[in-house]
Amino acid sequence: MATSYGKNLNISIYGGSHDEIIGIRATGLPRGFVFDLEKLARFMERRAPGRNSLSTTRKEPDRPEFLSGVSLLEGNKACLRGDELHAIIRNTSQRSSDYSNLEFIPRPSHADYAARMKYGEGVDLRGGGHFSGRLTAPLCIIGGICLQYLEEKGVNIGAHLYSVGSAKDTPFDLATVGKGELSLLEKRSEFPVLDENAEGEMKSEIESARLEGDSVGGIIECAAIGLSAGLGEHIFSGVESRISAIAFSIPAVKAIEFGNGFECASLRGSQNNDQFCTDGSKIYTKTNNCGGILGGMTNGMPLVFRVAMKPTPSIYREQDSVDMVSMKPVKLTIKGRHDPCVVLRALPVVEAATAIAIVDMLLDD
Amino acid sequence: MATSYGKNLNISIYGGSHDEIIGIRATGLPRGFVFDLEKLARFMERRAPGRNSLSTTRKEPDRPEFLSGVSLLEGNKACLRGDELHAIIRNTSQRSSDYSNLEFIPRPSHADYAARMKYGEGVDLRGGGHFSGRLTAPLCIIGGICLQYLEEKGVNIGAHLYSVGSAKDTPFDLATVGKGELSLLEKRSEFPVLDENAEGEMKSEIESARLEGDSVGGIIECAAIGLSAGLGEHIFSGVESRISAIAFSIPAVKAIEFGNGFECASLRGSQNNDQFCTDGSKIYTKTNNCGGILGGMTNGMPLVFRVAMKPTPSIYREQDSVDMVSMKPVKLTIKGRHDPCVVLRALPVVEAATAIAIVDMLLDD
Amino acid sequence: MATSYGKNLNISIYGGSHDEIIGIRATGLPRGFVFDLEKLARFMERRAPGRNSLSTTRKEPDRPEFLSGVSLLEGNKACLRGDELHAIIRNTSQRSSDYSNLEFIPRPSHADYAARMKYGEGVDLRGGGHFSGRLTAPLCIIGGICLQYLEEKGVNIGAHLYSVGSAKDTPFDLATVGKGELSLLEKRSEFPVLDENAEGEMKSEIESARLEGDSVGGIIECAAIGLSAGLGEHIFSGVESRISAIAFSIPAVKAIEFGNGFECASLRGSQNNDQFCTDGSKIYTKTNNCGGILGGMTNGMPLVFRVAMKPTPSIYREQDSVDMVSMKPVKLTIKGRHDPCVVLRALPVVEAATAIAIVDMLLDD
Amino acid sequence: MATSYGKNLNISIYGGSHDEIIGIRATGLPRGFVFDLEKLARFMERRAPGRNSLSTTRKEPDRPEFLSGVSLLEGNKACLRGDELHAIIRNTSQRSSDYSNLEFIPRPSHADYAARMKYGEGVDLRGGGHFSGRLTAPLCIIGGICLQYLEEKGVNIGAHLYSVGSAKDTPFDLATVGKGELSLLEKRSEFPVLDENAEGEMKSEIESARLEGDSVGGIIECAAIGLSAGLGEHIFSGVESRISAIAFSIPAVKAIEFGNGFECASLRGSQNNDQFCTDGSKIYTKTNNCGGILGGMTNGMPLVFRVAMKPTPSIYREQDSVDMVSMKPVKLTIKGRHDPCVVLRALPVVEAATAIAIVDMLLDD
Repeated sequence: MATSYGKNLNISIYGGSHDEIIGIRATGLPRGFVFDLEKLARFMERRAPGRNSLSTTRKEPDRPEFLSGVSLLEGNKACLRGDELHAIIRNTSQRSSDYSNLEFIPRPSHADYAARMKYGEGVDLRGGGHFSGRLTAPLCIIGGICLQYLEEKGVNIGAHLYSVGSAKDTPFDLATVGKGELSLLEKRSEFPVLDENAEGEMKSEIESARLEGDSVGGIIECAAIGLSAGLGEHIFSGVESRISAIAFSIPAVKAIEFGNGFECASLRGSQNNDQFCTDGSKIYTKTNNCGGILGGMTNGMPLVFRVAMKPTPSIYREQDSVDMVSMKPVKLTIKGRHDPCVVLRALPVVEAATAIAIVDMLLDD
Repeated sequence: MATSYGKNLNISIYGGSHDEIIGIRATGLPRGFVFDLEKLARFMERRAPGRNSLSTTRKEPDRPEFLSGVSLLEGNKACLRGDELHAIIRNTSQRSSDYSNLEFIPRPSHADYAARMKYGEGVDLRGGGHFSGRLTAPLCIIGGICLQYLEEKGVNIGAHLYSVGSAKDTPFDLATVGKGELSLLEKRSEFPVLDENAEGEMKSEIESARLEGDSVGGIIECAAIGLSAGLGEHIFSGVESRISAIAFSIPAVKAIEFGNGFECASLRGSQNNDQFCTDGSKIYTKTNNCGGILGGMTNGMPLVFRVAMKPTPSIYREQDSVDMVSMKPVKLTIKGRHDPCVVLRALPVVEAATAIAIVDMLLDD
Repeated sequence: MATSYGKNLNISIYGGSHDEIIGIRATGLPRGFVFDLEKLARFMERRAPGRNSLSTTRKEPDRPEFLSGVSLLEGNKACLRGDELHAIIRNTSQRSSDYSNLEFIPRPSHADYAARMKYGEGVDLRGGGHFSGRLTAPLCIIGGICLQYLEEKGVNIGAHLYSVGSAKDTPFDLATVGKGELSLLEKRSEFPVLDENAEGEMKSEIESARLEGDSVGGIIECAAIGLSAGLGEHIFSGVESRISAIAFSIPAVKAIEFGNGFECASLRGSQNNDQFCTDGSKIYTKTNNCGGILGGMTNGMPLVFRVAMKPTPSIYREQDSVDMVSMKPVKLTIKGRHDPCVVLRALPVVEAATAIAIVDMLLDD
Repeated sequence: MATSYGKNLNISIYGGSHDEIIGIRATGLPRGFVFDLEKLARFMERRAPGRNSLSTTRKEPDRPEFLSGVSLLEGNKACLRGDELHAIIRNTSQRSSDYSNLEFIPRPSHADYAARMKYGEGVDLRGGGHFSGRLTAPLCIIGGICLQYLEEKGVNIGAHLYSVGSAKDTPFDLATVGKGELSLLEKRSEFPVLDENAEGEMKSEIESARLEGDSVGGIIECAAIGLSAGLGEHIFSGVESRISAIAFSIPAVKAIEFGNGFECASLRGSQNNDQFCTDGSKIYTKTNNCGGILGGMTNGMPLVFRVAMKPTPSIYREQDSVDMVSMKPVKLTIKGRHDPCVVLRALPVVEAATAIAIVDMLLDD
């Protein structure tokens, strides 16, 4: 069951949503880097539940405790010591009783059925166990540190809600997305969209789903700017492979596309190719259909990709399931506190995951 | 520059398109498995160039030589010995002269520019070097062995041309795709489509692009059936992470989606959830929007995904580039022999990659 | 600075002797194995300080807390869940003031000087930091679980004090060491020797060193019985490579020999070869100069090896050192609480390390 | 069966002594390093069989062919390209008939019995298969390149025959061994001893064993000088762990000791501690009982260790074995061409292994 991510910066996540703690281990972080604990806490709050009416009413502070790998400094700063870093978050708000009827009745489109088939009765499925979206909180600890590290290196990462249900934001301009857009999104971090009108439409979609005991999916678009050309390796360690591998570790992500993505499949080479131009000192491309990645390597243009997230499978409507003991069909109604739309809370997780993947690539020999 | 794939079945690919050989190393293959060399050769021929007018005119036999890890048996059979397997393919048909004008003038949408920025003058870019699609040939050696292994375990993998340019095939029915469809595609392996009418339309798209010195992209849809529930691990080693990581190592792949993919983002949970039903002995889902994967694990339903491939960047039309020495804009016309549409040849590579990912998951503890 | 051990059962140790905690991470442990917490606690006590006048007066309970990977069952039992296991021990008895004069004056034969040269001023050297013998406590958590697992599989591991200073115990008979000897050593676990007379001599050596403010080294001999033939892999994953790699991770170990060890170098092949014989149903060797290992694999005979441990470098006598700031020679007198002979406390650590190495080998494919 | 070595410079060896080729794969070698092919060939000749009457009469040129990872330059130079390096050696001198009677009758103190128990009938034991000393030839390719790389970095490695049977050379002075001794040994590379008188005695030991159809063991002492302080990591990645892990992968090595090694176990701390002194600009130790390693890290003093090698198990005298099919005792007489003393040929292998371990450590982050 061991799973880890990264060639140079290697991480694994442990604990489950209903254990005492959840935690993350990281090796290979840049020794000596000083980060801001307050800034990290603010970043993590963007993922935390209970911030507004659009997300689950569970409130958890999600403050990381560093067991090793970090020296605390004055002024809310901390320094990466270079040894194996461990950070844990205590689980304080479990309501296991919400899950008492679910032990042998798998929830549709949750991990329950597959996990039960894999592990037998040993696995704890309350709240999703190891499969819970809650395990993205520790990812945000390391991701948050990586975002601060990248910022110092001139690399900025930002994401916006590309769509929620049928409501759409203005997409990034692939060739020109820059600091302006990312600063704007940072200011709007409570609801990051480029087009202010999109906010209202998206909130209506979510609210309408919530009122109907339903949920709704969405698409997150993420950009990384300031990357030099040549990050990533050929074949199995290309940029797309490394970003997709960590992006799909975020629960509910079902699709990813880089640059113009699926659209490229319907184009001619003469339409899709990004031709070169120069200002005499720098080479760039007129278009950026490739999303900043060629041959598995960055080419110095903005790195842009989109991930599709399915609607939260936990809905309050009656659904069909099967009792795995009696093998009889049953009607299931899910209790508990659930987000009608996880896309908003997943957005900083996508940024965190991207930051981890990019730091891992920066550390390639 | 080291890159490898797989937790249990671990592979790396070496050599470049203009070296004497290209090769693949594999550890963790199931010891004692006997495979058919003739069947492997036929599988590899599906990827090989020069089969018909739709692909490049380079002809290379691409017969693998096994340096270690394999015992040759009678009757064209071979046995996996269990030690590190090495298989090489000799490069016999390089025409480096075709690339003589490209040393400092990067081809649009190729790896050239990024590779030059990464490696400096040391890297050999003729024919794409380490970044060439030719490196998918060794992948097909191990993939072909894995396909035979999976077949023996009751797992079948098959892909079809979902689209080429604007021409579309009938998609797989996510919930019911089975042996019937995969057998049909095997019979039509020269041009695998479900709807015979699609073949003509797709060939017109390719031929028309070729006549105009242009190229065209497409989408491959791949299904794996016969998988038991519970393959894959949580978080970083989920099925989507592992398939996407190897799928994006195939040159020109720019997007991947599982199940209904991007479509899920616009749906409500009540629409997207796959509700359970049973025939009394087996549990399955009525729909299969998740593409057979929940919580990073297989759920026993057909595993279905699609990858988008960009049009071949090598086109015969004049394009804009920049001389990296003089930093002056130049007009570039590419010579050499190139596929107007790589999607057809990439199709067995997608099957090979999927087989490798699935065998790796079957070997999880 | 990341360091881990094991191909299948993989472990890393984190924290330092003067951090709040020290901990161990393990992946690949056999899922579902039920172990006894009380038995584990008793095993760990053998390593713990303060048990008798022969060791340091620091008293630390060293009770492991399991953060993940373990389900607590009734009756002081626990079950390995299969996910990443984390166990921590809280440091409660640090006396950092003992180390206040050592920041820039390296202690002879300690890690201080090398660590300062490697890490600069960032590294915390109080109590040895990451280099402290205290980090063997977490090793004993996983090692203790492995010992219980191996016992269930019919494999027993036991060690004795082969020598302390000039005092010597009876060595194991390489060819015949069996359950009898190992049971005897278990009974004598407070001071494990085969020859009761050795105990007095060894204790005198230690006491005499202690009284003189000095320390003394020793040799531990360890045997593993009940192993089937064929464990271990050729070349880099042979039994000797894997046991030595973990044995040398125990501070103060400076040498290791398998079977007759260094003696074999002065022998003829006709003297050293272990010839085969049989009782009709089983093949064994008359002698066991190879210590149960041939070609890097076990051969079914007892696995026997010896490790030499240097005397504790912390002695109370004045020693020569150099002030690394002023680069002037200084006289150094070490304070703190230190074992006059670590060999006794290191003995269960050697058993733990051996158990980990053997479980790792049992899990080879 | 997969086995590899190294955290940063990672290698694996493939093929067996009676396959068509044996080979080595290496990732992580320093990109851009230019090495001398002629010098590498001369180094490999030191290990090659058939050089003089003291070794086996098999003659094999053992010229490496580089399949990938290396660019050939003018003047017998070659450059490390940075991609996965593969080098093979063709097996040209197998005489499998020599082994025809050994299929089910294990040779005493060879890998045969353990391998048969592990792999069943599938494993090819002729000439030792994967367990043959011949597999140290590929190790010398990468080791030879590493030796050239280290030389350029001011690090020199040299070994001498510390003993052969009962004949002994002068040992290295642990604290002062330097370029003088290593240069002398390089000049005497056909028979590297510090004391010229030792050569005659050792040769007599070997010749006398050979005439009696017997073999003899020996000890190799190896020194590395010019290392800066701070190489190696704490716990599992210490210098001793990493050198011992690769040293024990050399067939016939049964023991290793660093510095004064086993002797330290009988000493007091006050005798064994290496006290510091300074010349005002540099800190060093008066003695070097630790062999240049403290806390798993180099301390800037000469790194010195000794490995004991058992006598070649292939002797021409009749020995007892057992027929594994009939389970009856049999008398066995070994044919084939075998070294009466492998220590001389193993000496460059120890240097190669040490160089690989040190380059791996130099590449630690």
